[in-house]
Amino acid sequence: MKVSELGERALIARISKLLGKQGNNVIVGAGEDDCAVLDTGGEEYILATTDMLHRKTDFPPEMTGWQIGWMSVAVNLSDLASKGAEPLGVLMAMGIPPDSEIGFVEEIAKGMDDCASRFGMQVIGGDTDSHEELTMAGTALGLVKKELLIRRSGARVGDLVCVTGHLGTAGAALLALNKKIPVGEEILNALFEPFPRINEGIALAKSRAVTSMMDISDGLALSLHDLSRASRVGFRIYENKLPVLPGVKRLFEGEELLDAVVYTGGDFELLFTVAKDKIEKARKACPLTVIGEVVGSGVFIERAGGLEELEARGYEHFGKG
Amino acid sequence: MKVSELGERALIARISKLLGKQGNNVIVGAGEDDCAVLDTGGEEYILATTDMLHRKTDFPPEMTGWQIGWMSVAVNLSDLASKGAEPLGVLMAMGIPPDSEIGFVEEIAKGMDDCASRFGMQVIGGDTDSHEELTMAGTALGLVKKELLIRRSGARVGDLVCVTGHLGTAGAALLALNKKIPVGEEILNALFEPFPRINEGIALAKSRAVTSMMDISDGLALSLHDLSRASRVGFRIYENKLPVLPGVKRLFEGEELLDAVVYTGGDFELLFTVAKDKIEKARKACPLTVIGEVVGSGVFIERAGGLEELEARGYEHFGKG
Repeated sequence: MKVSELGERALIARISKLLGKQGNNVIVGAGEDDCAVLDTGGEEYILATTDMLHRKTDFPPEMTGWQIGWMSVAVNLSDLASKGAEPLGVLMAMGIPPDSEIGFVEEIAKGMDDCASRFGMQVIGGDTDSHEELTMAGTALGLVKKELLIRRSGARVGDLVCVTGHLGTAGAALLALNKKIPVGEEILNALFEPFPRINEGIALAKSRAVTSMMDISDGLALSLHDLSRASRVGFRIYENKLPVLPGVKRLFEGEELLDAVVYTGGDFELLFTVAKDKIEKARKACPLTVIGEVVGSGVFIERAGGLEELEARGYEHFGKG
Repeated sequence: MKVSELGERALIARISKLLGKQGNNVIVGAGEDDCAVLDTGGEEYILATTDMLHRKTDFPPEMTGWQIGWMSVAVNLSDLASKGAEPLGVLMAMGIPPDSEIGFVEEIAKGMDDCASRFGMQVIGGDTDSHEELTMAGTALGLVKKELLIRRSGARVGDLVCVTGHLGTAGAALLALNKKIPVGEEILNALFEPFPRINEGIALAKSRAVTSMMDISDGLALSLHDLSRASRVGFRIYENKLPVLPGVKRLFEGEELLDAVVYTGGDFELLFTVAKDKIEKARKACPLTVIGEVVGSGVFIERAGGLEELEARGYEHFGKG
């Protein structure tokens, strides 16, 4: 069977099964969460995460070199953010087409550096390689106090389901680009200059109100299913509570809007669950929207027409999902 | 100007210059050494290194999936080895052509896992991505006691220059493949299944006899120049002391042999300098060959015909060097 017939999540599950038993110092290993978590004996865990982006799938031609560099760091920081970690440093392996202008590569480097500096750390290492297609493979390292680590697996029935920011913005930007509809910078930047929720993640971890968290880079629906699997719970989401920018609403008609908001990837927001009696603590940590609650099983959305199942569908490589 | 006109080392220098001032916890940052070195306050430094390999440049068609997986982990471990570090874990971002057989990808995963387990750790995380060309971007994390870290910058005039293992073996294997000359497994495996010198690196660090170290994956000559720049010293190497397998010698004629031994990459051996009065301590740590000594400046090789300069030439991406 070909990889394209299997889909990304099934492939990762098969690869993870082949990897040997994780050592005692591995708190969270391959395929389990947004980051690997290592215990080297100190007061803090070391977190590590890697994400590979490349020209055809991730960098529309409209993106500048600076934006490519920024995004390549930002997507890795988003995974750290979802565990409540402070970034420690980022490494970037760059596969560069040999006929690239040096100025373009320097722009990319500047974008990487600006994103790293914005979050108080640096690009600490990397690799350059001659590659037909521009390819950026980043790895971010972070630290989190052991008692503050937030995993995907802690959601409990009755908790409230929350998100930071708005949903569907990056999907709307992509649609606008494809259809050549002019849209504002706020929408375009969600796609080209994603802003990792590092500060929100750290503040939410410190609030001790959050029971589980992940980022929604693959879309809300797929992320809810991931969280559901990790926490062995279900979710009921309310359509009328989903935070969507007015400019995004205007771009879609009818069912298209819900599709963009729940089944489209590219928004680097945080999805998290909060114990009901601690929601005020979470609100003090950062702006958030309550979009639903944790139930026993299933992933449902309540709409005007009644309760519908949310499919496990969103952004997956290899065309499946 | 195009990247291809600049060459890899010059490109890295330009990128590194654009990266902001490294923070206080960054002991060694981008472009300075084989690994980034971070101080998070414990007794040990955290080391991190990344290396991207791909089908066209790094995986000859004769390689099995298992060997591709093994090599992708091994090349990253070699960088840890050169700093005397213990491996902590490895992350692997895999860019996979969608028409790959799942069995082939599983073989790669098995090779990754076997290499990681062989050195007492695991693949702790990763990413999969649909990519036209098979691309493996690995990141290895390691730990080293602060007082045992070996950098590129510690070589002093009068030190002895040493290497582990043999030189030119991977280059000989590549030549044999290209010319369809049958060669033994020992030579082929240097290319297909490089064995990172983790145990040697750790033992050499513990011996406290080593003043500087790096791996020679880009070839001996280029590595000597890198070490020379970092330590602000020169080297005098003796041609008749270079350790070369008899089977390798038979493959080359005349000047071709020296070319393969000093200017060809792919051998994952360690190059290091040892204070003269501590060479016995180093010998107790691991098998080694003394190939020369540290001098004030220049990189020279002593041959039957006299002293020659060793050029800064070897394995560089973008066709330069």
